[in-house]
Amino acid sequence: MNLTVLVRPKTGILDPQGEAVRDSLRKLGFPVERARVGRLVELEVAGASRAEARAQVERMCAELLANPLIESFEILEEGG
Amino acid sequence: MNLTVLVRPKTGILDPQGEAVRDSLRKLGFPVERARVGRLVELEVAGASRAEARAQVERMCAELLANPLIESFEILEEGG
Repeated sequence: MNLTVLVRPKTGILDPQGEAVRDSLRKLGFPVERARVGRLVELEVAGASRAEARAQVERMCAELLANPLIESFEILEEGG
Repeated sequence: MNLTVLVRPKTGILDPQGEAVRDSLRKLGFPVERARVGRLVELEVAGASRAEARAQVERMCAELLANPLIESFEILEEGG
């Protein structure tokens, strides 16, 4: 079962990487108001039902993939 | 106009960060077959139509956000 986790800096949390990207894009001439940089993790989870895989990925986010103090995460399902 | 760019390592390209994540998740007891790590960039592009904003973000990907040799990108639209 394949799932994708999107990890984003929470609103209000400083994102220096996003600011650097925004400034670089502006220097290249693009009209960018705001840029925020996060992570994407694609996971293949073995032998689990859809619901069980999703529950496991939520635990992975809590234990390793995201920092709940400063990041939010979203789990996308793709295919089976 | 808000758009999100997903940048992923291309299939076949070595992804040491993904391997480290997979190994760490396995050590925590999760049955993970594969993990691939990429980036997510949320962009707010000023005063552009949907089609124009999307075309601009494609140029941003080519010029700065993704390395076409080793990464693929996908552009998601969210809201207006």
